[in-house]
Amino acid sequence: MRDFLPADVRKREYVIGVIKQVYERYGFEPLETPAVENIETLLGKYGEEGNQLIFKILKRGEHEKTGEADLALRYDLTVPLARVVAQYQNELPKFFKRYQIQPVWRADRPARGRFREFYQCDVDVLGSKSMVVEAELIAAASDALVALGFNDFKIRLNHRQVLTGILQAAGIPKEKHNDALVALDKVDKLGREGVQKELNLRGIITTEQMGAALDVLIPDLASALVGQSSAELDLEIYNADLLNRTRERFRDDEVGRRAIDDLFVILKLTRLTSAAPRIEIDTALARGLSYYTGAIIEINVKDLSGSLGGGGRYDNLVGMFLGKDVPACGFSLGLERIIVVMTEREMFPPHLVSTPADVMVTVWNEDSIGESIALASELRSMGLRVDLYPEADKLAKQFKYASSRGIPFVVIVGDDERALDQVAIKNMQSGEQRLVDRAGLGTALSDLGLRVRTGELRRNKGVGKDDREG
Amino acid sequence: MRDFLPADVRKREYVIGVIKQVYERYGFEPLETPAVENIETLLGKYGEEGNQLIFKILKRGEHEKTGEADLALRYDLTVPLARVVAQYQNELPKFFKRYQIQPVWRADRPARGRFREFYQCDVDVLGSKSMVVEAELIAAASDALVALGFNDFKIRLNHRQVLTGILQAAGIPKEKHNDALVALDKVDKLGREGVQKELNLRGIITTEQMGAALDVLIPDLASALVGQSSAELDLEIYNADLLNRTRERFRDDEVGRRAIDDLFVILKLTRLTSAAPRIEIDTALARGLSYYTGAIIEINVKDLSGSLGGGGRYDNLVGMFLGKDVPACGFSLGLERIIVVMTEREMFPPHLVSTPADVMVTVWNEDSIGESIALASELRSMGLRVDLYPEADKLAKQFKYASSRGIPFVVIVGDDERALDQVAIKNMQSGEQRLVDRAGLGTALSDLGLRVRTGELRRNKGVGKDDREG
Repeated sequence: MRDFLPADVRKREYVIGVIKQVYERYGFEPLETPAVENIETLLGKYGEEGNQLIFKILKRGEHEKTGEADLALRYDLTVPLARVVAQYQNELPKFFKRYQIQPVWRADRPARGRFREFYQCDVDVLGSKSMVVEAELIAAASDALVALGFNDFKIRLNHRQVLTGILQAAGIPKEKHNDALVALDKVDKLGREGVQKELNLRGIITTEQMGAALDVLIPDLASALVGQSSAELDLEIYNADLLNRTRERFRDDEVGRRAIDDLFVILKLTRLTSAAPRIEIDTALARGLSYYTGAIIEINVKDLSGSLGGGGRYDNLVGMFLGKDVPACGFSLGLERIIVVMTEREMFPPHLVSTPADVMVTVWNEDSIGESIALASELRSMGLRVDLYPEADKLAKQFKYASSRGIPFVVIVGDDERALDQVAIKNMQSGEQRLVDRAGLGTALSDLGLRVRTGELRRNKGVGKDDREG
Repeated sequence: MRDFLPADVRKREYVIGVIKQVYERYGFEPLETPAVENIETLLGKYGEEGNQLIFKILKRGEHEKTGEADLALRYDLTVPLARVVAQYQNELPKFFKRYQIQPVWRADRPARGRFREFYQCDVDVLGSKSMVVEAELIAAASDALVALGFNDFKIRLNHRQVLTGILQAAGIPKEKHNDALVALDKVDKLGREGVQKELNLRGIITTEQMGAALDVLIPDLASALVGQSSAELDLEIYNADLLNRTRERFRDDEVGRRAIDDLFVILKLTRLTSAAPRIEIDTALARGLSYYTGAIIEINVKDLSGSLGGGGRYDNLVGMFLGKDVPACGFSLGLERIIVVMTEREMFPPHLVSTPADVMVTVWNEDSIGESIALASELRSMGLRVDLYPEADKLAKQFKYASSRGIPFVVIVGDDERALDQVAIKNMQSGEQRLVDRAGLGTALSDLGLRVRTGELRRNKGVGKDDREG
């Protein structure tokens, strides 16, 4: 698990702030659940492997000695959501649109870029089977990534029943569908040949069936069907052609054909959103999770092997808690991965990470400390972030400190300045120092590019405070 | 433990946003530590009772059966801070000013207003013994409460060594000081007579010593010394008189006299801050925690029996982790209590709690859903929070839904409106409905009081978005 030092917290809060603002614009509301759930709520929801990875909390007091656990740490945000929907069903609106950005804990063996405490960032709509839900989730995730500065992501879209239809059309028996999906899920890593080997090894299809089956199963084959790859073709035409050709294979498969219709509806409903030019139908997109029942979505960028986010429709999960099914569809942005990519690509506003304060006020001597405090108060009331050096050290030492902390400006009130009712401003980058009238300090700092808020001054140059306060 | 439904999350985020903004203006930087610490880090830091209240986490995998715990949930924010300072000493600035707002967990028996998961909101300065630190912490906490809308709080100020001096002057032997402080800490609850009884019962002072000792110990006596209560007297005069008279009792007590000097310095340094008119010296303020070594501070309002926050100087705690002492001073705002009082006094901006969106866009029929999505996108790009009804239900049903959710305006695009390139806006409170040109929708909503952000429009009427986005 990690400590987040100030620069790290700022990065994460920036990303969360942008995502929240976008989700709020879509009418999503924040939900937070406790870190700790009853252990029964979590056990059995994540498979056998998941059970092992849950952090379990000892009973307290006299029961501590029994070594039994009755509580556990939150493992994801979906199961707590399902519990909340069951528990508060009469208080929640008919369509419950919530976002939730909180840490989860998994007792994984720690590895590079993987931690046992990490944030999830989920957005879900409960209560409607309308494809409007899928369209809005896709558009919101797309808007959020665009707002963060991403412009090269691809939104892959598929449907659980299309996958099933393709597996059937490829002649794979129902009981081997899950194994086949696991193999198919690796096509990014293994390529066509690797998947072929895997399907063969697991005895899912025979070598004889292989050629025809793979033609249906593997996405670049889909491109081959259309005759051109998605990169060469207008995406809208590519998507429509691929869906139409896939439908042709589903002649006797009513369920599969309805799934194709659903995907067409989603494409149509997202046509006027930021997602439109990025959506690519990918009939091989499987995503590991078994609880999906409808559309499945994944967002990728080239320089990251995993995804930036993913989601889909899961109409049966809430029923495990409530006793009756509630239609649901959700999307999860991979907050930690987004931060990794943004850091590598230097997408964060530079001041965000480097400047703990806009100005540092120095202390001239013990007697004038009150004056320094008053000056700092004044600058703070102008909306500036002001550090006050706490001790009457030598000025050179105070400058060095400001410099080491990346604070761009230092304000000095020496005896001479005080006598003339002036203050000195030192630009720590250029070293330049100049005197200004005490009353004109706000204007002077504003001219230097700081966003100063006073009665008269409402300027906006360079460094933006709003970005940081999000 | 609690779930936080949307209205609750909004309240807490509003309070946290305001506090953060103030702390950032003071040059404090955010720190976050993991929810889980090694169990040895926590055990023994909170006394025997504290050890019992720590949530302990079972070892994983094959060790699970042993019933042993190796990890534990964060119990406060001070011990993790001390660990961080020891662990990252070379990466942190000489003066480490951090704020930290995160949940902690205590296995207390749940009671009204007390939960086993609750947020702490700490601000600390490490690395300086200067009283500038105390002054800035007091001023920052005061600014934060003022920014939240509090105007009736009192900041009580005392010093650990003043307490010791008073106990000595009252003839209480050193080994009974801690017991005496515990009794004294209850003066708010028990009054002078109750404390007298308690001191008597515990054998701290004899009945014969009682009168004179209590005259020194109990705060209203301090007022009696001055001759007038703090309410009748100018606080500045009251504070100075009380400190001067207390100093007179410390004739042979060098440490006590230096503590009085420190308090005078703090009063002087805060004179030009928002805290000045609220600080009252209270020579009986004890605060339970034993690790304080210098100034101690507590903030109260009349209608709350506990405090809104408290803190003080603790120069020895970090040494437990680092091996060498690091001077430190901190203040903790009681986030949950602040929210309770603000809710009771209705201090939250009303729209904050009640409106999940500014506008709801309706859906006319299945064929025109795309149009509704486009309209919603457009309004969102103007910075509005827009809910889109996901299904083609009857309009009356959609209105009822918007109404039940407290969404103030609904936008309708029916067949007639579409033919004329118009849309209808319905005010859900007045029921009034009017037609506007599609192109003028932003202006119309802005005229209705929403803050709309477009190229031309930059208005600011009524409902403010910035407040909500903090």
